[in-house]
Amino acid sequence: MEVRNVLIVGLGLLGGSLGMALKGKQYRRLGWSRREETRALALKMDAVDEIFATPEEALKEADLTILCLPVPVIPEFLQICRKFCKPGSVITDIGSVKGVIVDAARKALADSGIHFTGSHPMAGTEKSGLENAFATLYHNADGFITPGDSPEADDAVVEFWAAAGVRITRISPEDHDDLVAHTSHVLHIVASALALAILEGKSPEETALRFAGCATGFRDTSRIASSNPAMWREIVENNRMAVLNAMSGFDKWYAHFRELIQNGNFDEFEKVFAEGKRLRDSWTAYKENYKK
Amino acid sequence: MEVRNVLIVGLGLLGGSLGMALKGKQYRRLGWSRREETRALALKMDAVDEIFATPEEALKEADLTILCLPVPVIPEFLQICRKFCKPGSVITDIGSVKGVIVDAARKALADSGIHFTGSHPMAGTEKSGLENAFATLYHNADGFITPGDSPEADDAVVEFWAAAGVRITRISPEDHDDLVAHTSHVLHIVASALALAILEGKSPEETALRFAGCATGFRDTSRIASSNPAMWREIVENNRMAVLNAMSGFDKWYAHFRELIQNGNFDEFEKVFAEGKRLRDSWTAYKENYKK
Repeated sequence: MEVRNVLIVGLGLLGGSLGMALKGKQYRRLGWSRREETRALALKMDAVDEIFATPEEALKEADLTILCLPVPVIPEFLQICRKFCKPGSVITDIGSVKGVIVDAARKALADSGIHFTGSHPMAGTEKSGLENAFATLYHNADGFITPGDSPEADDAVVEFWAAAGVRITRISPEDHDDLVAHTSHVLHIVASALALAILEGKSPEETALRFAGCATGFRDTSRIASSNPAMWREIVENNRMAVLNAMSGFDKWYAHFRELIQNGNFDEFEKVFAEGKRLRDSWTAYKENYKK
Repeated sequence: MEVRNVLIVGLGLLGGSLGMALKGKQYRRLGWSRREETRALALKMDAVDEIFATPEEALKEADLTILCLPVPVIPEFLQICRKFCKPGSVITDIGSVKGVIVDAARKALADSGIHFTGSHPMAGTEKSGLENAFATLYHNADGFITPGDSPEADDAVVEFWAAAGVRITRISPEDHDDLVAHTSHVLHIVASALALAILEGKSPEETALRFAGCATGFRDTSRIASSNPAMWREIVENNRMAVLNAMSGFDKWYAHFRELIQNGNFDEFEKVFAEGKRLRDSWTAYKENYKK
C-alpha cells in the first residue's frame, strides 16, 4: 500500500508533535484543525507542510488520516470521513481507549472500502495545546495498534508510527482497554485521590508545614494528578468497566496492607512490601534491557 | 553552646552522606560504625576525619552525636550514650518517626545532663549502604527538629543541619508523625499496592505486553515501591496509628471516585479530578516559589 499524503486531524499537543516528528520523513504532511489560529500556528511552527481550511478538502487528499481528536468527537467525525475519504485509504486515531472507537469505526465505515486500524501511541505530557508541542514527544515511545480488516492497512499504520519513533505492539481492543485500565487509568485515580487527601482543606500554617515536609515521594506519586481533567473524564467514562475492574485489583492489595498494619503483623507486611519491590525492580530491569 | 566534635553513629547511605556533606565545614567529623569494613571505607571515602573502633571512645569525644541508626536500635543505643556521653553534650537522630524515639530518649537520658533534640532530615534515595553515599544528598533538603529540654541544644542542632544544607522547621513529635504519615508513609503503601496489583502473577506474554504498554505514569507513581522493605516496615510499625489515620483520608477520596464511576456521574468525576489538579498545581507553584 502506497502512503504519501498523511493527514493529521486535530493539531493539539499530540497532533502537533506528531507533525513535527514526521518532518523530513517520507510523507507529505497535511493538516486540519477546527480553529483558524491553530491552523496558522501549525504552519508557522512547521508542524505540517500544508494546511486545509475544511475537513472535506483535506480528507480527499489523504492516503492515511490520523484522528488526533477527543474520544467523544471521533464517532461524529468518522461520518465525515465516510463521505470524503478515498476508498482504499486508511484511517487511524490516537485515542487512549480502543473499544468504543473501533466499534464506532466499524459502524461508520461499513462497506465503504475505507480501512480503519486503531492506534494508541503511549506519549503525552501533563500539558496540552499546539504551543506545547515538540518534535521528540513520540521518540522511543511504545504504542499499540488494534488490527482492522486489512493487513496491508495495518502494516502501513505500523510503518507510519515507526517513522514517528513509536514501537508498535498488536493487540485486540478489549485486551488493550483492560491493559491501560491497569497500567494507567487506575494510577490517575489513585494519584488524584492522594493529592486530594493530602492537600485538601488545610489551613495556611498546616499547608506551609506540609510543603516543608514533602520530599520527592509526593511529587512523583502525585505527578499525574496534574493531568487534564476533561481528558481523563473522557478516558474513564469510555473505559468504565475495565477501570472498575483494575481498581478492584489495587483494592485487594491495599486492604491487605491495612489489615496487616491493624493486626500488627509486620513480618508479613515486610514480606509483601518486599514482593512489591521485587516485582517493580524486575520490571525496571526488564524495561531497561528492552529499551536497548 | 560550642560544638566542635560531631560524631556520626552509623555510616550507611544517610550517615555517610552526612559526613561527606560536612567536609570543609566548622566541625571535626568523628565516626563509628559496627562493621570494620564500613569504618575502613568511611575513612577511604573521606566521609569522616577520624574513626573509632568502639562507641565508648567515640561518644566521650563528641559535643554533638547524630544517631544514623535503624529506629528499633536507637532505644538500646541511647543506654550506651547515657553511660559515655559528656554531660552538656547533645544527641540527635535522623529517624523517620519521632514519637517513639523522643519517648525513648526522655526515659534513657533523664537527669543525665545530656540533651536530646529529635531530627528528621527529609532526604534519601531507594538505595542504601555507604557505597551509595554522596555529598549532595542533603543539599537543599527540608527537615524537622522536635525541640527538647534545651533551647541552646536545639539551636546547635539547627546550625548543624544548616551546615549540611538542610532547612529546618520546628514541630512537636506528634504533629511530625501525623504529617509524615500523610505526606510520605501512606504513599509508600499505595505505591507498593499498585506495583503488586499491576505486576503480580502475570504470564510472561502478558508481562511483556504490560512492559510495552507502560508509559512514565507507572514508573513515577510506583517509584517508591522500590524502597527498602525492612526500613519501611520499621517506619510503619513505629507510626501505626498515624498511618492508619492517613490511609482513611486517602480511602475517602478513592471510594468517592469509585462511586462516581459506578454511578456514571462523570460531570462530578471531572470536577473532583480538577480540584485535585488545582491543589497539586498550587502546591507545585508554592513549592517552586518557596525554594527560591
